Amino acid sequence: MSTPTSSILYHIDHVGIVVRNLDDALKTYVELMGMRLLERQVAPDHGVEIAFVDAGNSTLELLAPTDPASGTARFLENRGEGTHHVCFVVEDIEAALAHLRAQGLRLIDETPRMGIHGLVAFVHPKATHGVMIELLQRVTH
Amino acid sequence: MSTPTSSILYHIDHVGIVVRNLDDALKTYVELMGMRLLERQVAPDHGVEIAFVDAGNSTLELLAPTDPASGTARFLENRGEGTHHVCFVVEDIEAALAHLRAQGLRLIDETPRMGIHGLVAFVHPKATHGVMIELLQRVTH
Repeated sequence: MSTPTSSILYHIDHVGIVVRNLDDALKTYVELMGMRLLERQVAPDHGVEIAFVDAGNSTLELLAPTDPASGTARFLENRGEGTHHVCFVVEDIEAALAHLRAQGLRLIDETPRMGIHGLVAFVHPKATHGVMIELLQRVTH
Repeated sequence: MSTPTSSILYHIDHVGIVVRNLDDALKTYVELMGMRLLERQVAPDHGVEIAFVDAGNSTLELLAPTDPASGTARFLENRGEGTHHVCFVVEDIEAALAHLRAQGLRLIDETPRMGIHGLVAFVHPKATHGVMIELLQRVTH
């Protein structure tokens, strides 16, 4: 068998939204819309400032570039503010990547790397009809 | 009081993804990625063909235009395939719209209209940093 038969259990961890200014975005999502701020941090390694707000069964990740050379900054320049990615939590990110690779799906990250909340890898949006999909295996610090 | 003090309980119902061809998209999301197909239907009133796939705690709504004059077809022409909207289920859509309107957020739908799964209304993406937000109050048939 060249393709794994086990299936991946997908669960939406968050929807990532690129914004120009994090304070402005938090004003909209928290103050005006009434969502609860869960976490805010600067992630210099990723060239972004990040906030998570509660979306009931999931969260929204608001990302504002702090480094003009970051992918987030390029996205903002090319597409403007808006939805950037959908992140699915998986139990075993290595197995999930092996499964997707065996199915011929193009990956951005062939091996997982450390993200904010655990091991992450991105699938190429050309493989998934324009949606940037992030896989996350949560790692407890 | 001009603004309601009660807060809206948000819960992600689905992430809407515009695709060119529904069969091709289902091949990717169901056959290759291993998500489960929950529902598929043609919605002539909306000029789209729709499928919902299971995303664990939520769903993905794949939308392919059947009418070249539909909003979905225009989105596809202007932006290509990709994430189109994020839908939040709310308990009382009239109250939610009143709350958002009182906060000065620009709405696409001032009053709810009947969608596939209940009463729906869209918030203008210019109000929410480029994200097209759909509110849904589920109505049991």
